Amino acid sequence: MRGVGWADAEPIPAQPPPGTSAVEIVVAKRDCRELTRDQIDWVVGAYARGEVAEEQMAALAMAILLNGMDADETAHWTQAMIDSGETLDFGDVGRPLVDKHSTGGVGDKITLMLAPLVAACGAAVPQLSGRGLGHTGGTLDKLEAIPGWRAELSTEEIRAQLRAVGAVVCATTPTLAPADRRLYALRDVTGTVESVPLIASSIMSKKLAEGTGGLVLDVKVGSGAFMKTRARAGELADAMTAIGAAHGLPTTAVLTDMSVPLGRCVGNALEVAEAVEVLRGGGPPDLVTLTVTLASEMLALAGITGADPAGVLASGAAYEVWDRMIRAQGGDPDAALPAARHVETVTAERAGVFVSADAMAVGTAAWRLGAGRARKEDPVQAAAGVRLLVDPGDEVQPGTPLLELHTDTPEKLPDARRALGGAALLVISEPPRPRELVLDVRRSR
Amino acid sequence: MRGVGWADAEPIPAQPPPGTSAVEIVVAKRDCRELTRDQIDWVVGAYARGEVAEEQMAALAMAILLNGMDADETAHWTQAMIDSGETLDFGDVGRPLVDKHSTGGVGDKITLMLAPLVAACGAAVPQLSGRGLGHTGGTLDKLEAIPGWRAELSTEEIRAQLRAVGAVVCATTPTLAPADRRLYALRDVTGTVESVPLIASSIMSKKLAEGTGGLVLDVKVGSGAFMKTRARAGELADAMTAIGAAHGLPTTAVLTDMSVPLGRCVGNALEVAEAVEVLRGGGPPDLVTLTVTLASEMLALAGITGADPAGVLASGAAYEVWDRMIRAQGGDPDAALPAARHVETVTAERAGVFVSADAMAVGTAAWRLGAGRARKEDPVQAAAGVRLLVDPGDEVQPGTPLLELHTDTPEKLPDARRALGGAALLVISEPPRPRELVLDVRRSR
Repeated sequence: MRGVGWADAEPIPAQPPPGTSAVEIVVAKRDCRELTRDQIDWVVGAYARGEVAEEQMAALAMAILLNGMDADETAHWTQAMIDSGETLDFGDVGRPLVDKHSTGGVGDKITLMLAPLVAACGAAVPQLSGRGLGHTGGTLDKLEAIPGWRAELSTEEIRAQLRAVGAVVCATTPTLAPADRRLYALRDVTGTVESVPLIASSIMSKKLAEGTGGLVLDVKVGSGAFMKTRARAGELADAMTAIGAAHGLPTTAVLTDMSVPLGRCVGNALEVAEAVEVLRGGGPPDLVTLTVTLASEMLALAGITGADPAGVLASGAAYEVWDRMIRAQGGDPDAALPAARHVETVTAERAGVFVSADAMAVGTAAWRLGAGRARKEDPVQAAAGVRLLVDPGDEVQPGTPLLELHTDTPEKLPDARRALGGAALLVISEPPRPRELVLDVRRSR
Repeated sequence: MRGVGWADAEPIPAQPPPGTSAVEIVVAKRDCRELTRDQIDWVVGAYARGEVAEEQMAALAMAILLNGMDADETAHWTQAMIDSGETLDFGDVGRPLVDKHSTGGVGDKITLMLAPLVAACGAAVPQLSGRGLGHTGGTLDKLEAIPGWRAELSTEEIRAQLRAVGAVVCATTPTLAPADRRLYALRDVTGTVESVPLIASSIMSKKLAEGTGGLVLDVKVGSGAFMKTRARAGELADAMTAIGAAHGLPTTAVLTDMSVPLGRCVGNALEVAEAVEVLRGGGPPDLVTLTVTLASEMLALAGITGADPAGVLASGAAYEVWDRMIRAQGGDPDAALPAARHVETVTAERAGVFVSADAMAVGTAAWRLGAGRARKEDPVQAAAGVRLLVDPGDEVQPGTPLLELHTDTPEKLPDARRALGGAALLVISEPPRPRELVLDVRRSR
């Protein structure tokens, strides 16, 4: 007769010993209390071990999103995520280590020029990277457009390449900050991505576990970025440099514009080709400016003074490192890149001055064309993407080609055109204001 | 080479069509937006069907707890929980239907007297009830102390008993508001129990699905109650009467004191014996007062005027209904109740006036002795509990017996004594203020 029945009243849950239960930790953050280091260590570790249920971590993530975590809590949270896995140490490669992370943009192929450039100036760049999701591309997706190039390296392969070449861009390993991997997948389905402390600790835990000696963060701001406003991007930059300071990692955050795409090309092979142009001393000026700016910040953190990254880039010395870096990972830098089977041109409808191509619109169009993925397990098309044919300030007439749509799946062309409708491609009668590319710089020391 | 890798940047999650995804609904509440009726219908129904993941509902529950739901949202949420299961209709039993729900207290055996009393005055009371959890007892646990009594009835058995006797106290069925059952289990482990809209909709969905014609809510306030303050209890009372109004169910909430136990007995068989005393015209005055107060409110909602519940209770007419109600469910009201194998007495340590026995402390002591359960699946001891031997205001000397601890498991006696330590049993030199039992009344119309 004692079957399971409903409680007549809302019961008070049984209280386990202080600080040791998931419910108690959720309740503490729900009630705006600061979590202790012990509580954070336990809950993150237990979650990584599967001892805290997904629904408990989801409730905690929402409480953190809405009630925040202060700098100490965020630093402890980051450490607990690092402690959930292994850490790497490339301190024996004979050069100062320095890395860069971008919060993600449209046409953001900066890593492709930056890693070889900084290596050419004497530092070692161990860039453990990822694939793209949504309208922003992933660095590995771009490099995988190069025939033969492989993303997966062993730790010893990374070490050897850092010694021999100075630059590695490869896939991160599942053993680095596994709690973050699990938590990110959970946040993605529970509306808890947009928490500054959780974003900051996610990024920083991976970079700290990777063992870099200095870190430059490219925090994107604008329609094509995750952070739409400068205030919000500044908040993220401050949270990340604070974590860097707490962990003794010299960290510089550079806020940069992502209202329009970087360069003229968006899409994997298209961006590799454009990066090679820059590495050979040419390419669009915004790419050159941002690459040199970030290289200078990285070299400063690496303690390399007197280097001239602009000169090194123009000289072709960075291209030499690129060539060796690609070959070291099985790629053929001289091979032809994949070309799309279908290319369609979008033209101006009226006369005037081309002002801008909205970053979100171009990123979404490239994604629709096959350059990006909606789910982690989706493939991407190497050749798909968007190539802009005009720069802001160019005068156009009705029928002037504005951009090209590249794809292997032409049935997606209407979707891409739709993404570029409305005010996405702005043509007006007055010339635009010059673009402010670098918006702000914030340092951990 | 296209294994699953990390996203390089924090991606923007793909946006499904408006209003149709769990993530979008979580994000809406996270961002303090009002949920639409369609969103609520979908998410509650899909959760009951297993189409919304536990972690998504956990994030939503936390967002609701922290950002609230207004009266419309709460009414829709309640309706969606009702719609997740079946509803009952006892409109054909030939008497006006009226029910009571208590938010749970220590020594709260009021239902045992109230259901027979209100039936004796001409209404029908279909009380679908639950078992206890934690320090508050469950009505079914109490009645199961009576030899032979069974809690599980079919809908037709309930209907027949309402016609023949007028009062039924039995187990609720799993088919009533199944979304609530699932959600309650989730809230219990995710720190999301303490949300007024979720508590209110949980209680009201079950009572509305049960098909009562009027509802009196006994909202307990104080140390032994879920709501510790009058303000918080008032908030819950208002939320529940608003749901009643929105669903056309006349609802009255009575805020009553739960700083000290109700009556002198806490524990299943002990409480049944005390309830029988009251039904026979005796018993502690606080039990009589509260029973008559709630009966008057129920009779008013049932439209029965001119009844004299105090007189009916004193006359023994309510006991007649009790006798038939217990027999109708297989119980023997004349059988001896289980007695504990071990009874220990706690005595006063100094002379003075006995002021109070803290409700939470006495409830916890009874729970430790075996009267309550920590988990749904635990058994309870019928005979375990606490019997107070003095009333507030009584003069005591060192050694005067204050209360008895009853248990079949004497190894739990030290735990129970510990719960009653400190200021739990207050003896001072000045007489206490009279207790204010009924604190407030709030009505849906």
